[in-house]
Amino acid sequence: MSAANSPFGYALPHIQKMHGYTPGFQPKGDGWVKINTNENPYPPSPAVEAALKAAMGDVLRLYPDPRSEALREEAAKLHGVTPEQVIFGNGSDDVLNLLVRAFASESPASYLLPSYSLYPVLCGIQDTGTIEVPFDRSMELPFEALEKVEAKILFITSPNAPTGVGFSNADLSRVIEGFDGIVVVDEAYADFAEENATELLAKYRNLVVTRTFSKSYGLAGLRLGYALADKEVVEILDRVRDSYNVNRLSQAGGLAALKDQSYLKAVAAKICRTRDYYRAEWEKLGWFCYPSQSNFLFVEPRNAAGESGAAVAQDLFEFFKANKILVRYFPSSPLTDSFLRISVGDEDQMLRVSETIQKWLKNA
Amino acid sequence: MSAANSPFGYALPHIQKMHGYTPGFQPKGDGWVKINTNENPYPPSPAVEAALKAAMGDVLRLYPDPRSEALREEAAKLHGVTPEQVIFGNGSDDVLNLLVRAFASESPASYLLPSYSLYPVLCGIQDTGTIEVPFDRSMELPFEALEKVEAKILFITSPNAPTGVGFSNADLSRVIEGFDGIVVVDEAYADFAEENATELLAKYRNLVVTRTFSKSYGLAGLRLGYALADKEVVEILDRVRDSYNVNRLSQAGGLAALKDQSYLKAVAAKICRTRDYYRAEWEKLGWFCYPSQSNFLFVEPRNAAGESGAAVAQDLFEFFKANKILVRYFPSSPLTDSFLRISVGDEDQMLRVSETIQKWLKNA
Repeated sequence: MSAANSPFGYALPHIQKMHGYTPGFQPKGDGWVKINTNENPYPPSPAVEAALKAAMGDVLRLYPDPRSEALREEAAKLHGVTPEQVIFGNGSDDVLNLLVRAFASESPASYLLPSYSLYPVLCGIQDTGTIEVPFDRSMELPFEALEKVEAKILFITSPNAPTGVGFSNADLSRVIEGFDGIVVVDEAYADFAEENATELLAKYRNLVVTRTFSKSYGLAGLRLGYALADKEVVEILDRVRDSYNVNRLSQAGGLAALKDQSYLKAVAAKICRTRDYYRAEWEKLGWFCYPSQSNFLFVEPRNAAGESGAAVAQDLFEFFKANKILVRYFPSSPLTDSFLRISVGDEDQMLRVSETIQKWLKNA
Repeated sequence: MSAANSPFGYALPHIQKMHGYTPGFQPKGDGWVKINTNENPYPPSPAVEAALKAAMGDVLRLYPDPRSEALREEAAKLHGVTPEQVIFGNGSDDVLNLLVRAFASESPASYLLPSYSLYPVLCGIQDTGTIEVPFDRSMELPFEALEKVEAKILFITSPNAPTGVGFSNADLSRVIEGFDGIVVVDEAYADFAEENATELLAKYRNLVVTRTFSKSYGLAGLRLGYALADKEVVEILDRVRDSYNVNRLSQAGGLAALKDQSYLKAVAAKICRTRDYYRAEWEKLGWFCYPSQSNFLFVEPRNAAGESGAAVAQDLFEFFKANKILVRYFPSSPLTDSFLRISVGDEDQMLRVSETIQKWLKNA
């Protein structure tokens, strides 16, 4: 190495310029109500722990199944597709990354704003152009703008984050039919929604549906997700995938979770009930809240004086934090800067949220 | 989507043309002696299972530490560097992938032949040029050819695979000093070697050393690896890394394994003893075998007639397989096609290998 160089200078120019993804703040210490990253307040199925214990020990010295076959078979059964239409990743983020690497480079990638903030980061790493399609305040799909997008891949989060708004299959079909490229419907929150896009797979070969174990399955700590797609798309993604991307424990635990659909449904129903209760409560306060089909609420708080806006949202965000409640605030856009995204916690957590809101309103 | 299109056609041209990495064959059913992917024949430290059990349960609903802090601190202590000089991955393959993505694109990547066969696959995914530097039969570093390489990143596997030959720090220093770019010394097998390159980190800011838990730690099933480097290099790799690339269980199990260095050393010493014993045995048969500093032997078998060569190696490979012993054969190069790579198994496995060789020699 020439002494004048720092190793930084060897990095690709676009990497030298970029910033990484900022994950949600992880608090240290006890006593926090952590409702900032849409984790599940309830533990995973008890079947998971049993499966993990059975997968430990001596066998950990061996590489995992490079094709995650048992998982793919189970997911295929669940969604009525073939195992060749399923690919698993180290979190659905892994699969989203594979999609960008396989389909976007000279041709740009497209996504909506606001939606999952990882897409621009993945595009930045890939040094691909981006076509950002803005929502308006209705937060419904902007069909006309989407029709004009010229990209080989389009990401739609449905239900969307951070709004929680879900898109109907009729609306998604309209977009998919008009799009000359791959449409990824990122269904991280689909288990909390009324409808999901998996039935559209039989109709559209350019549709990819992604799922995660981090939300409804309560397994964010395990890192597991998958995509359902045409088998040709899966074959393409497999070329870009690390052979051993899903470890033995994630494969075993994920399989047990997939098999316990009754537990999943019970937990999801409980979260939806809590969600709908608190949405109604906050609307009673005169707060606007998007109709959520996910495990969080995107709410526009009003202070005691009846004001809303960025300053008010930020004030409540800070007040929550001072009271050891972590929610998420997105100040970078006028569509989001007057809102807070609050993950649906368990009953105790939500009571603390309610009490803190009352305190905030009185303090003002 | 236009009906004429298959979704395959949306993939990037270089992805449409490429093939994925072929992982070592994973046998199904019992009774196999699986010594084809350099896994450890011995289980991981008992501390790992205890740590995994402690990390299970309710807490799996939460995302893992995005910075793998405890792991990085422990690895830093072990190697005498700072935590800012350590980055963890979902296997060292993950880290190798990050290195290619951050440092190779318009400028090519370089590696030696033969060495770890993942490098060309990672370069293929990245669509980067490659400069392949061949070894000669000595399997020592070809200094003159390496001096002429113009690339921003160079991968050296040390000890090398599939030969097992380790390179001295004096030899590595000569390469690193002459190289105007990042030199990655991939030390997957360093715990079985006499020397390793970590002490060179204090001297060379363009050096990256990668390590894995898949070999000496007996945790291939957990997918964990790391790199040690200048903190500027780690900062660059962090931009490309998925925030939650290492799950909770891998972090907990890996930490326990790192802390139990006495177990690691005992296992590595046992494997080295077995390795050296069998190398001597095979040399008694008149078989050439590279001096191995890893957990495998690269051996050139001779049949009963005293012949060696590709046909002989392939014949023994097939004979092993028919006897439910899986080793690795690399037919694609004249430097490797007369050899077999045999991972060092436990005593029972190696006895079965020996008996099978005797049977093969008698059968001829």
